[in-house]
Amino acid sequence: MALTGKPTLAVVGATGAVGTVMLQILSQRADIWGEIRLIASPRSAGRKLAVRGTETEVTALSEDAFDGVGVALFDVPDEVAAVWAPVAAARGAVVVDNSGAFRMDPDVPLAVPEVNPHTVRSRPRGIVAGPGCTTLTMIVALGALHAEFGLRELVVSSYQAVSGAGRAGVETLRAQLSLVAGTELGTKPGDVRRAVGDGTGPFPEPVALNVVPWAGSLREDGWSSEEMEIRDESRKILGLPRLPVAVTCVRVPVVTTHSLTVHARFQREVGVDGAREILATAPGVVLCDDPEAGEFPTPADVVGTDPTWVGRVRRALDDPTALELFVCGDNLRKGSALNAVQIAELIAAEPPGRG
Amino acid sequence: MALTGKPTLAVVGATGAVGTVMLQILSQRADIWGEIRLIASPRSAGRKLAVRGTETEVTALSEDAFDGVGVALFDVPDEVAAVWAPVAAARGAVVVDNSGAFRMDPDVPLAVPEVNPHTVRSRPRGIVAGPGCTTLTMIVALGALHAEFGLRELVVSSYQAVSGAGRAGVETLRAQLSLVAGTELGTKPGDVRRAVGDGTGPFPEPVALNVVPWAGSLREDGWSSEEMEIRDESRKILGLPRLPVAVTCVRVPVVTTHSLTVHARFQREVGVDGAREILATAPGVVLCDDPEAGEFPTPADVVGTDPTWVGRVRRALDDPTALELFVCGDNLRKGSALNAVQIAELIAAEPPGRG
Ligand SMILES: NC(=O)c1ccc[n+]([C@@H]2O[C@H](COP(=O)([O-])OP(=O)(O)OC[C@H]3O[C@@H](n4cnc5c(N)ncnc54)[C@H](OP(=O)(O)O)[C@@H]3O)[C@@H](O)[C@H]2O)c1
Ligand SMILES: NC(=O)c1ccc[n+]([C@@H]2O[C@H](COP(=O)([O-])OP(=O)(O)OC[C@H]3O[C@@H](n4cnc5c(N)ncnc54)[C@H](OP(=O)(O)O)[C@@H]3O)[C@@H](O)[C@H]2O)c1
Repeated sequence: MALTGKPTLAVVGATGAVGTVMLQILSQRADIWGEIRLIASPRSAGRKLAVRGTETEVTALSEDAFDGVGVALFDVPDEVAAVWAPVAAARGAVVVDNSGAFRMDPDVPLAVPEVNPHTVRSRPRGIVAGPGCTTLTMIVALGALHAEFGLRELVVSSYQAVSGAGRAGVETLRAQLSLVAGTELGTKPGDVRRAVGDGTGPFPEPVALNVVPWAGSLREDGWSSEEMEIRDESRKILGLPRLPVAVTCVRVPVVTTHSLTVHARFQREVGVDGAREILATAPGVVLCDDPEAGEFPTPADVVGTDPTWVGRVRRALDDPTALELFVCGDNLRKGSALNAVQIAELIAAEPPGRG
Repeated sequence: MALTGKPTLAVVGATGAVGTVMLQILSQRADIWGEIRLIASPRSAGRKLAVRGTETEVTALSEDAFDGVGVALFDVPDEVAAVWAPVAAARGAVVVDNSGAFRMDPDVPLAVPEVNPHTVRSRPRGIVAGPGCTTLTMIVALGALHAEFGLRELVVSSYQAVSGAGRAGVETLRAQLSLVAGTELGTKPGDVRRAVGDGTGPFPEPVALNVVPWAGSLREDGWSSEEMEIRDESRKILGLPRLPVAVTCVRVPVVTTHSLTVHARFQREVGVDGAREILATAPGVVLCDDPEAGEFPTPADVVGTDPTWVGRVRRALDDPTALELFVCGDNLRKGSALNAVQIAELIAAEPPGRG
């Protein structure tokens, strides 16, 4: 990026679940940006949001909104990103897109700065994608283990927070909790569903006092889009196009912070002590693993923090090449907003004359 | 069992989470029992509970309480069962124990009537054990698939309801939910923990708006007792003493009904249609698997029902011998009370002259 002075940053989708956390993160990190421009739908135009301590007016998404923008962070639905990210790129902005619209495009790098920072530099479409929040929950820790032991197979189960489905997900859980708390609901067939009625929001079933084995839309052979994405994205980020990955995605009544259980098989024998040492020293990872002292990560403690938290590290009892892990990460921070900000910072730090 | 008239049944632990559901189940099933005697701790002596429509007085656990008892169902903590089950057996009762005290005793069968009914007949100690509720959540469905395809490996993650930790677990979740519902809690580090304070009951961390990757007590190498039990019990029930089983147990804010994700590898290739047919026709199993129509099991729908519900049946994308499943079962019904009642019914149906 040819830098003369500090570059202008645009946040597209500044009013959403990810956008809101993005503004907090931008206020906390080293201030490398010139103007920060907030963009959302025409519905939000004129609203004022605080960023870096300054009330800033939201403008409606338009071509002109990208004039003079160096980097544009996109946190909008897939279909909006699909149309508008190329527009921003054509106006000269480098786009960092958190939606699913470009992640598997071979001309778009899928970047996680701790794992594959070099990929950011080659971006023929002017677009860099960030992975989905569920992949991001585990990939920094897995990247570190893969570098040492060579990953051979993954079996993953998710415990996904409702804010992974945006503001609507959070509002749905809060409304459902008000209906069920203080009642005897949850012990008779269908009583939660009756209390919740049509109020399931973005979820196909009630999520309060429940777990729902579904996230995303239906793909072939009964797989959900979220399950397929975790497989596709992990393979692309780690550069292992044939990695066997089995996933089942489940939504749980947690506001923010995704958790995953991971059964990871490697090319060679893994020692638990060696694995713990790697996790304890890997950038962006916190090892939190002392069950005797009651130490393991849970969403209630991890929410609002930046790193990937890893606990319950065990060697599989019947396979010396496999590890069991329990991993937590704030889906609105490293799971989306923070990862995009990190990518934007890499781009801003590129030597002048590029782009 | 030498039957002259209908045998007397004792329910030990009649006031607990499992005991309460046991009394409901006994009121719903064919009435094969003579007297039903309700037993609990001295704390509960004199309380009256309804069973088969009759208010029945609870008596305190004592040797004499087993006089004339044909079958004694034990639903008490491990340490109480360890002492009192042999006492009841010495008095001539056949004990069906739901605690963990005898499950791995080689002289005690570990019985699941749909899977290994024949084991009940050989009970040198006069004791038959029922497996833990987490094993029971999956084992009926897995037993049916194993009979056809030959099980070779399991990777399991649990989503365990709070009533798996008894009455205290349910009270803890209800109290915590009253504190967090209607608030903004769940979005800042530690705020749920501060609101809940010391009120974590049988759980090491808050369980409302959270998931907790721990169940049971610490065993060697970082494994929890519950995780080891699922491996040990599955092997014993299926008669596969070397089956590789990897498990991570996680508690979720659901009142009743455990869920599991299962990655099951078989001896030979599995077709999804064949697997679905087996699950659709296996006794005690309901196939609930049409994601296009929004059909998959969730605890909110499964609670209060008898069978094992199986959904999200998929063949692993990278292994033609492996299946992915999502399984739900009411931990207080098939997961404990119902399984014990089924065993008791098998015993009561034995030809006279035995025992
Ligand atoms: N939530 C997560 O954990 C997570 C993690 C990784 C990636 N992502 C991805 O990040 C993106 C945003 O997710 P979210 O959870 O923040 O969603 P959200 O809470 O629903 O917010 C959506 C944002 O997009 C804006 N928007 C919607 N339609 C628009 C349009 N036609 N033109 C301009 N702006 C429009 C909204 O603006 P208004 O307020 O004006 O409607 C809002 O700012 C999605 O692609 C999602 O898949 C989310
Ligand atoms: N909850 C489940 O999903 C589940 C599933 C499978 C197996 N189990 C096993 O089933 C057993 C009971 O579990 P639960 O969940 O029902 O526990 P719970 O709700 O805590 O109930 C415990 C029962 O044991 C009785 N009890 C405790 N100490 C006693 C003593 N010293 N003498 C006589 N009775 C005594 C209690 O009587 P008072 O009311 O008088 O104290 C109560 O009836 C445990 O071994 C558990 O591991 C539970």
